[in-house]
Amino acid sequence: MKENDILSWIAENAKIYPSVHIGVGDDMAAVWIPLTSGHAGNLALLKIDQALDQVHFDLREHPPAAAGKKAVNRCLSDCAAMACTPAAILISVALPRTADLGMVRELFIGCQAAAAAFNCPIVGGDTAIWDQRLAITVAALGITDHEPIRRSGAKPGDALCITGKLGGSIVGRHLDFTPRIHLAHRLARALDIHAMMDISDGLAMDLPRMMAASGTGATVDGSWVPVHDDARLLERRDHLSALQHALCDGEDYELLFAADCDDARQLAHFDPEIPISIIGRVTAAKGEYVLVDENGITQAWPRGGWEHSGCAEP
Amino acid sequence: MKENDILSWIAENAKIYPSVHIGVGDDMAAVWIPLTSGHAGNLALLKIDQALDQVHFDLREHPPAAAGKKAVNRCLSDCAAMACTPAAILISVALPRTADLGMVRELFIGCQAAAAAFNCPIVGGDTAIWDQRLAITVAALGITDHEPIRRSGAKPGDALCITGKLGGSIVGRHLDFTPRIHLAHRLARALDIHAMMDISDGLAMDLPRMMAASGTGATVDGSWVPVHDDARLLERRDHLSALQHALCDGEDYELLFAADCDDARQLAHFDPEIPISIIGRVTAAKGEYVLVDENGITQAWPRGGWEHSGCAEP
Repeated sequence: MKENDILSWIAENAKIYPSVHIGVGDDMAAVWIPLTSGHAGNLALLKIDQALDQVHFDLREHPPAAAGKKAVNRCLSDCAAMACTPAAILISVALPRTADLGMVRELFIGCQAAAAAFNCPIVGGDTAIWDQRLAITVAALGITDHEPIRRSGAKPGDALCITGKLGGSIVGRHLDFTPRIHLAHRLARALDIHAMMDISDGLAMDLPRMMAASGTGATVDGSWVPVHDDARLLERRDHLSALQHALCDGEDYELLFAADCDDARQLAHFDPEIPISIIGRVTAAKGEYVLVDENGITQAWPRGGWEHSGCAEP
Repeated sequence: MKENDILSWIAENAKIYPSVHIGVGDDMAAVWIPLTSGHAGNLALLKIDQALDQVHFDLREHPPAAAGKKAVNRCLSDCAAMACTPAAILISVALPRTADLGMVRELFIGCQAAAAAFNCPIVGGDTAIWDQRLAITVAALGITDHEPIRRSGAKPGDALCITGKLGGSIVGRHLDFTPRIHLAHRLARALDIHAMMDISDGLAMDLPRMMAASGTGATVDGSWVPVHDDARLLERRDHLSALQHALCDGEDYELLFAADCDDARQLAHFDPEIPISIIGRVTAAKGEYVLVDENGITQAWPRGGWEHSGCAEP
């Protein structure tokens, strides 16, 4: 059973309501809140995401505060993907019987540190105790003064861009990253972004999701993909290339976006701290994903991504 | 470790933000969504709640659809407690490795049936697979055209009222109940409700929570507490009285509310389908909870409620 299969089925079977502006399938949903006074209502953006012990973190190695911080930051990364502002966080924890109040406090302190970094209040939660491992579920309310940036707006000919560098997040970055909220807001002000999402499951899996939502295909130049030093570190340890790690590892929490080529070319020096790279092009060949190597030779699109335990040979 | 201890600590340690209208500690939180156009913003009510396998339901006995329905209805019951309207639902599921797509579909169908009963869209979700049991987490967005009804407004002298009948939910009602949303709206229109909450952990535990939030105490007449037939059924099976079951079993998902005595007395025949009972009075004796038996003799307040595996002798 694959997450994509579940999501497709749910997207097809979710009832349609006129109040839903963006439904199942994007980084966040958006719902109209009506105003009683007759004014146009405003949008509430919504997201839920979970972080599970020994899946997304490991309490045998990581302190509870790090788990809580990651759980909240994963959800805030979706706010970045829509270029909205997080306005409230809710946190639900299923605690193992071995948990004590000290552990819960640490967990909450980690959650609050992540939320407070974006001036976002934690407004509610739920706790339960069971004889299973820790599960943290975070829901976020986002607000925006512009139309949220969806996955579905990429156009053939658009440049495909990436913030930061990819791969090897398991070395440590997956647990301690800063959601790209401020950068997303600056990007949204600086240019007309057609589509955006955060890379949580790896570019190899997430890029086809954006293209599927947009009804397009993509060509990516492997030599343009920004490879993180952590991916090079892993390359020396295992049989996978640094590029494979960059494409398939996931948990980068960087932003993938599509914009006009001319706009995108001006971004080269947008933020000296955070490189922004053009990695390829949106194409009209719906559902076709092409990876070109440094010699211009077409490779098979790497299946895999974080959902799988490895990454097939490209 | 008790849930109350965790909640108190979190309520004391959550950072304060001006946008938060109702923070940690009520049935739902409420956050102001600003309008860019200069109009006053509107309120987004928010809730997160979880339902765990072998805690809130048991997949060895209950079908996935029943688990999904209960998970959503628990969250909708909080919308009833605030007398707001559910506007969107998010669902996160941590699936055991044994789950297949058929099981996920059934689960979703149960969730959607519960939400659709109140015209509420399911707008998003998250799925992950782990080697632990099923955890379902539901977040709800609620909207309202009046001030949400909090737990904290009970006044000394108020009548304490209950909808429906209490106790013995484990016989089956805990899995299949209708959140009192329509009734809550009708009550909110009909009278000035000072405080309201839903009874999920049992009156013995939940009533002190409302009184603590209101800075009051309470006297409850045991003979006025509406006892469900299921509680009488259990009385014949175990050593606890039907009243103890009514006070301590929990998972009733009925509404407890405080209102002026004169208002409350007019409710006797409010809804022929759903009895509304006056069970006692709010008192000025903060933190003191008194249970009076049918002979007018004061009993100790039953400790316990659903959090514990039993209910101390009253």
